[in-house]
Amino acid sequence: MPGSTFGSVFQITTWGESHGKALGVVIDGCPAGLPLCEEDIQTYLDRRKPGQSKFTTKRREGDCVQILSGVFEGKTTGTPISLMVENTDQRSGDYGELAELYRPGHADYAYDQKYGFRDYRGGGRSSGRETLARVAAGAVAAKILSQLGITVTAYTKAIGNVEISADRFDLEECGNNGLYMPDRQAAQQAALLISECVKSQDSVGGVIECRVDNLTAGVGEPCFDKLDANLAKALMSIGAVKAVEIGDGAASAKTRGSQNNDSMYSINQKLEKESNHGGGIYGGISDGSQILVRAYVKPTPSIAAPQKTVDRNMENREIVIRGRHDPVIVPRAVVVVECMTALTVLDSLFASMTSRMDQVIRFFDR
Amino acid sequence: MPGSTFGSVFQITTWGESHGKALGVVIDGCPAGLPLCEEDIQTYLDRRKPGQSKFTTKRREGDCVQILSGVFEGKTTGTPISLMVENTDQRSGDYGELAELYRPGHADYAYDQKYGFRDYRGGGRSSGRETLARVAAGAVAAKILSQLGITVTAYTKAIGNVEISADRFDLEECGNNGLYMPDRQAAQQAALLISECVKSQDSVGGVIECRVDNLTAGVGEPCFDKLDANLAKALMSIGAVKAVEIGDGAASAKTRGSQNNDSMYSINQKLEKESNHGGGIYGGISDGSQILVRAYVKPTPSIAAPQKTVDRNMENREIVIRGRHDPVIVPRAVVVVECMTALTVLDSLFASMTSRMDQVIRFFDR
Amino acid sequence: MPGSTFGSVFQITTWGESHGKALGVVIDGCPAGLPLCEEDIQTYLDRRKPGQSKFTTKRREGDCVQILSGVFEGKTTGTPISLMVENTDQRSGDYGELAELYRPGHADYAYDQKYGFRDYRGGGRSSGRETLARVAAGAVAAKILSQLGITVTAYTKAIGNVEISADRFDLEECGNNGLYMPDRQAAQQAALLISECVKSQDSVGGVIECRVDNLTAGVGEPCFDKLDANLAKALMSIGAVKAVEIGDGAASAKTRGSQNNDSMYSINQKLEKESNHGGGIYGGISDGSQILVRAYVKPTPSIAAPQKTVDRNMENREIVIRGRHDPVIVPRAVVVVECMTALTVLDSLFASMTSRMDQVIRFFDR
Amino acid sequence: MPGSTFGSVFQITTWGESHGKALGVVIDGCPAGLPLCEEDIQTYLDRRKPGQSKFTTKRREGDCVQILSGVFEGKTTGTPISLMVENTDQRSGDYGELAELYRPGHADYAYDQKYGFRDYRGGGRSSGRETLARVAAGAVAAKILSQLGITVTAYTKAIGNVEISADRFDLEECGNNGLYMPDRQAAQQAALLISECVKSQDSVGGVIECRVDNLTAGVGEPCFDKLDANLAKALMSIGAVKAVEIGDGAASAKTRGSQNNDSMYSINQKLEKESNHGGGIYGGISDGSQILVRAYVKPTPSIAAPQKTVDRNMENREIVIRGRHDPVIVPRAVVVVECMTALTVLDSLFASMTSRMDQVIRFFDR
Repeated sequence: MPGSTFGSVFQITTWGESHGKALGVVIDGCPAGLPLCEEDIQTYLDRRKPGQSKFTTKRREGDCVQILSGVFEGKTTGTPISLMVENTDQRSGDYGELAELYRPGHADYAYDQKYGFRDYRGGGRSSGRETLARVAAGAVAAKILSQLGITVTAYTKAIGNVEISADRFDLEECGNNGLYMPDRQAAQQAALLISECVKSQDSVGGVIECRVDNLTAGVGEPCFDKLDANLAKALMSIGAVKAVEIGDGAASAKTRGSQNNDSMYSINQKLEKESNHGGGIYGGISDGSQILVRAYVKPTPSIAAPQKTVDRNMENREIVIRGRHDPVIVPRAVVVVECMTALTVLDSLFASMTSRMDQVIRFFDR
Repeated sequence: MPGSTFGSVFQITTWGESHGKALGVVIDGCPAGLPLCEEDIQTYLDRRKPGQSKFTTKRREGDCVQILSGVFEGKTTGTPISLMVENTDQRSGDYGELAELYRPGHADYAYDQKYGFRDYRGGGRSSGRETLARVAAGAVAAKILSQLGITVTAYTKAIGNVEISADRFDLEECGNNGLYMPDRQAAQQAALLISECVKSQDSVGGVIECRVDNLTAGVGEPCFDKLDANLAKALMSIGAVKAVEIGDGAASAKTRGSQNNDSMYSINQKLEKESNHGGGIYGGISDGSQILVRAYVKPTPSIAAPQKTVDRNMENREIVIRGRHDPVIVPRAVVVVECMTALTVLDSLFASMTSRMDQVIRFFDR
Repeated sequence: MPGSTFGSVFQITTWGESHGKALGVVIDGCPAGLPLCEEDIQTYLDRRKPGQSKFTTKRREGDCVQILSGVFEGKTTGTPISLMVENTDQRSGDYGELAELYRPGHADYAYDQKYGFRDYRGGGRSSGRETLARVAAGAVAAKILSQLGITVTAYTKAIGNVEISADRFDLEECGNNGLYMPDRQAAQQAALLISECVKSQDSVGGVIECRVDNLTAGVGEPCFDKLDANLAKALMSIGAVKAVEIGDGAASAKTRGSQNNDSMYSINQKLEKESNHGGGIYGGISDGSQILVRAYVKPTPSIAAPQKTVDRNMENREIVIRGRHDPVIVPRAVVVVECMTALTVLDSLFASMTSRMDQVIRFFDR
Repeated sequence: MPGSTFGSVFQITTWGESHGKALGVVIDGCPAGLPLCEEDIQTYLDRRKPGQSKFTTKRREGDCVQILSGVFEGKTTGTPISLMVENTDQRSGDYGELAELYRPGHADYAYDQKYGFRDYRGGGRSSGRETLARVAAGAVAAKILSQLGITVTAYTKAIGNVEISADRFDLEECGNNGLYMPDRQAAQQAALLISECVKSQDSVGGVIECRVDNLTAGVGEPCFDKLDANLAKALMSIGAVKAVEIGDGAASAKTRGSQNNDSMYSINQKLEKESNHGGGIYGGISDGSQILVRAYVKPTPSIAAPQKTVDRNMENREIVIRGRHDPVIVPRAVVVVECMTALTVLDSLFASMTSRMDQVIRFFDR
């Protein structure tokens, strides 16, 4: 209930703050016998590292993951997997003034109200660094899913008002630009936009889209634990996300039923749909088609321009946030969205194993 | 984990399907000593009843709630409150063909894939009638919140492309039109739009907005159980909802940090903000200002026009859905959004009681 | 967390108090396709009914179960199964004095302290009638287990100091005496003991033993959710139970390792053990042999003899509890122990389905 | 559900195995503002260290705890507290034969059946070293309880058939003998018994008792989450525990109601009881008197004498367990029982904060 645990079958518990000794995650419920090494996880962590493009912060973060438990002779043992990343740079000298001031758009004031005081170093637990633990766990979830033939793929759909085009969509392109945009032209435009933001001491938001392919039908529970409800929670729990959509999302509110319904037909006894406005989820349950979710990310609240705020004594003050901050958080958050989606899908998939008596009987009849 | 339970401190478990004997909910975790009678709950249930306006279905549903346990001498006892609404009309004769056909935009196919078969009468568990149990529980949550001075208010923000105007906003107006729109002029336009839909055997979606006023700062947990994450799950778990937003939501993805940050200042030692783009939640925690959430509802999938689909044998078929169905589900879903918001806020509020050691010590020092 | 929910995969939520309108349970997580009718459940409920023998209360309780949801065309649908038993006799006139007095050995005082007031009619939620909902749910769990070849069998091991003998052990005998004792001679002695108690306006306790046969090895989790830990909670949560044992239980504390270890050997490549002191559970995990648990039940606290107590105003008083009460609760609690064991074993069994990656892959490779 | 998490409000998640890199625990739900340093925790860890007396293993285990997160400027921040103990001695060379053989009385066979293989080094996750993480977390729980005036005290009640005497009971004495026995004479006898066991290459079990003093009335939930049920789970989840009792426990099954009921009277408007057979819990709820629980510990299964067993290929074999092992595990388990009790009581105490509407209103009316 205190909320650092996510999932019910494949369950993760994260810990750590921006400038503490380390951050980490405990994965409980990983099946035994999965080959797993640090490299499997490091690959994912590297995708959220700063310094990947010229638009992400230059601070050096080593972010080297260690597996502390749950793996023996190269395979998971079925018991908790503890993953840890040590904070190599814990200097906190230059956070002096921030101990007193509430940064606009940040959680500083809310934390102080909730807890009576806060770890003001780099935002403490509310820092984006917290997502590092999610990514480490998500890498393991993604590996399990891939062994079941399921793939999860996220990318930048938009930065500010620069959006990718369906015509130019090319996943390969994601790796070429530092923005994880599957559209070379859009990426170039976005780069210009970001440069502009930097010049004007400002920041910008964007949209991340995520697809799940090859997920079996029947995943998700009918009532509160609908697959889309769990995905909504998973993505909205990422720091700067302010909206979540499934399939056509908000747009479907303006359409008619005749347009929005996904007509079905069959070819060779296999179900096909003429459209996928529903994003692969109906009544909270997957139908075997592609799952499509979208997360809307607000602009980085840390901007260089001076802002009005108050301090802990409720005095009116001006704040100037120094240090390097990402003018856009979207590119680094892509892997976070991908990982939260993977964690959610895997957990729901595992939960679906007891849906049918005939399948349960067959499972134990071994 | 099977997902008919919501909340961790104030916990509800719902049951029942469209054409079963009854539907209901068990509320576990309601503090003792709350005055509670059936009328408190019935008032909320009546708001989601069909036949409230000319645009909602004419089927008669009595929907009379009974309190079966947990209340003694007019007050809650602290033990589970069981609420039940009997289904007075359980005829299922006219669902014959629907037992075989998969309705587009509905959960029929997904259910069959998950469970091997399904209760096809009126959608079974996937029916909108399931929300009746949520509303019954939400009425109790709202009563507790009101005793703490907190109010939750939902209304129709848009139907199709007809949106309310901030200038004409008038909550009183909600009660005057059958659409729960706080804008008389918009309600009239929406009524025309809906009439048009009915004529063309079609349906339309819309947007529901919900405000929480007077919620104390410090509610919500920092990581996965952020207040906005829990709200996102709560709202996305409602049948036809396809997108959820907090504060400016998706729009914030297109803005700059300098615009989107909510500047703070103080008057008489009290915090004020120049804007509330964040919707009252920062880092997942309330800041004491108004909470603002939005749910986007897809058009009713049950439309009278013929549609292409398949049957259980994967034969291509045409489906014509008979009977009366709401051309727009939004007006009846308003109270559902309000109740799910109330349930979420109350649960998070209760969970916040152990945030601070000084408050814990004071609580037990009695 | 408020604690009327048990289990995580096969999850039950109970509600209802002694003299309310009804009692019931919601089962969430029952696989679809299980044949289920009211008779399946009624059989179990009848075993805990009063009036089964001359030593159980004569009050008439119909205890007819109704299935309100989750079953369609004779099979479970996979959605919540709501079971209800209406209280036919809700007269509360003769509980007048008990509203003020705290019965020794009962929860009256503790409830008043916790909730500020209480439903004093028949003990309210703390009444033994609460177990009715557990039995209804347990009947469903037992039916699933039986389809997997697993049987759960409870019986009276002792009443007061009259214990069954291993030499005379005969399960068939349980049905012949009203005490569910698998030993005719012990049952006769126990009957005498109980008669004596009745004469002296007193009551007596006893021991219930429960066996689980044919449970596969590998059930139970290594740390907090050990199979024996979950069984201990399940049994200790039954009203009058004051001790729980696994295998040799308390006796093993007095033995030596060389005696208490269960030596293993193999015959035809199959594991056998020379003893089962461990009760079939090692490190919290089943080893494929018989599971053996024991619950120690205190004497019925409601006795006819006058007792010293206090009232709500902390005045010293004498209490005389009128009405018919079971001089021993053990025979009626046998089916409760059996059902709580079945619920626990089933939940742990389902949870074990994701223990191994190879089995998970095989499950989804269909 | 995978079961390495305990508690619902004050929630802990443990990880680590005997010979891995480290062991640890994440505490989620600790209120902010609690003064906490490593020394607070180390004191508890030192109590379970080997080498405390001549009867515990001589292996050197540093067991130095590190606080990795959740504490800032000497106080808890309200966010997850991550505690870690590195394994300084990870040599695994001498476990060769044990990789193949199943040790009687251990979880080796059950693990292999569950997971398909196991970390055989020192028992892996099933090792007693796992309790180290419980103790670290329990130290924090105990510190919170002590700030609320509540104390938890465990001690050795018996080793083999040597039991402490009520007449000679002296808590101070626990610190003087290495056996944590509050009775000097019994401790001397027990020491002789253990020496004898060592000589005969055998081991012995015992009993641990734990008291909770000054716990307020009203703690514990009425149905499944009874305080005694949660305690039973907590203690039975400790490796070698085979029975758990509350108050008079098993003995009450042989008594009469007139003996077992705890008569109440009042002095100066305060409730007193003539006895405490119930162990301070009625209907699952504390009554404000002393809580009394007991855990029965089996003899250490690792004995030096040769034993019959099988190997992974189901060949009959003889096993000789080398290395130093505790001839009795009870003294080192005392602090584990104390910590699991503290964790349970604290979690139930926190959960009780929403029992009454009047108290909730007062809490938020600040």
